[in-house]
Amino acid sequence: MPNPTAAMLVIGDEILSGRTRDANMYYLAGELGKRGITLKEVRVVSDDRTAIIEAVNALRATYDTVITSGGIGPTHDDITAEAIAAAFGVPIGIRDDARALLAAHYARTGTEFNDARQRMARIPDGATLIDNPISVAPGFTLENVHVMAGVPNIFQAMVASVIPTLTGGQPLLSQTLRINRGEGEIAGPLTALAEDYPDLSIGSYPFIRDGAYGSNIVIRGVDAGQIDAAITRLAAHFPGDTA
Amino acid sequence: MPNPTAAMLVIGDEILSGRTRDANMYYLAGELGKRGITLKEVRVVSDDRTAIIEAVNALRATYDTVITSGGIGPTHDDITAEAIAAAFGVPIGIRDDARALLAAHYARTGTEFNDARQRMARIPDGATLIDNPISVAPGFTLENVHVMAGVPNIFQAMVASVIPTLTGGQPLLSQTLRINRGEGEIAGPLTALAEDYPDLSIGSYPFIRDGAYGSNIVIRGVDAGQIDAAITRLAAHFPGDTA
Repeated sequence: MPNPTAAMLVIGDEILSGRTRDANMYYLAGELGKRGITLKEVRVVSDDRTAIIEAVNALRATYDTVITSGGIGPTHDDITAEAIAAAFGVPIGIRDDARALLAAHYARTGTEFNDARQRMARIPDGATLIDNPISVAPGFTLENVHVMAGVPNIFQAMVASVIPTLTGGQPLLSQTLRINRGEGEIAGPLTALAEDYPDLSIGSYPFIRDGAYGSNIVIRGVDAGQIDAAITRLAAHFPGDTA
Repeated sequence: MPNPTAAMLVIGDEILSGRTRDANMYYLAGELGKRGITLKEVRVVSDDRTAIIEAVNALRATYDTVITSGGIGPTHDDITAEAIAAAFGVPIGIRDDARALLAAHYARTGTEFNDARQRMARIPDGATLIDNPISVAPGFTLENVHVMAGVPNIFQAMVASVIPTLTGGQPLLSQTLRINRGEGEIAGPLTALAEDYPDLSIGSYPFIRDGAYGSNIVIRGVDAGQIDAAITRLAAHFPGDTA
């Protein structure tokens, strides 16, 4: 049985404007891989209601799980919860349990629980909350869509809550062989290897170091023995040129 | 007139598998911004023919310009050129000018111009070549789609060739105001500011530093005077708490 699939939807202008270099995509990809879930697609859209609705509807229909990041804070550009509700065609309003969590947090810290902060208790009908151990304002899960904060440490905490609830697959294993040859010399043996090991995914990532061409060959799969055998066979083609 | 729009399509398993943290998206976003072109969407798909075709067709119909990265090398997993040809419904074959460039390069470096390397001369009919000053194998442009290598220094060189050929807009300017208050206290003034300056894009990026909440407010637009005025007005709300 193939591993379950996932997609990520990154919501917000900070990556599209070049202000921020992505961190959440990289983190999530690693965590899903450990759980045996294959990340098949990522989309990044701006804080635009129509763009969010179209993307989430396309992704949730195609993949087993969708994880979104960003746009669930208290400010005017935080429109993710409203857009997700619209995508599912369900109402959204301030929910008592989310409101209570936030009220208790702000009472503890002596901070005013103002209108803007109350917006963070707006949750689409039928959703379950995702715990936020850092700043309390919850994410939520609606069917196969998990809506999380974009701030990296909060995103990571929410991923840690949700991943164990997902149906996992066989963890993806990988080995890398560095070959001090350009891709053009490796391509022939690689093609033969890919044909003989149809269950393995074989990727080639060229690099240039000190003016010389080289390639990192990454072999991924769920069977450690197969990966070992493929790496050994490939290395035998290039004696003295591997690391 | 609104600025021209662009989308990026990242092709390859290395980001989806968590092996590599993106660099090209971040670079392209910055270069497009300087040229006054708004990056509206990014998609990341795996080395899968159907996924590439669907994504490129969706993006080229929606945005003024599409830039792809990855999958144009000599190995079995390099299927971008074939998929782009299929997306446009045009034939693809080895093209004489691309073949001549590569043949001269390999003759100069004393490297065999083997079958795998000849694959890099396969270009869809009707495309124009994009110069590769680093490893010669060209990218190509077909209508509004620009197909580039994924290796970061080659990608950057190809972006540098293509950007001056695109219709630009007014360069996007931005200023950041750091406010040592949580987003919940800034949200009210920000909403009012966004209403009074509909031409500016106002983003709020919360952070936690030494246990205290803060927010970076980024104001973007094409009119430096408007941005200055908005920053000044916002700072006046939080005397002593800005940087």
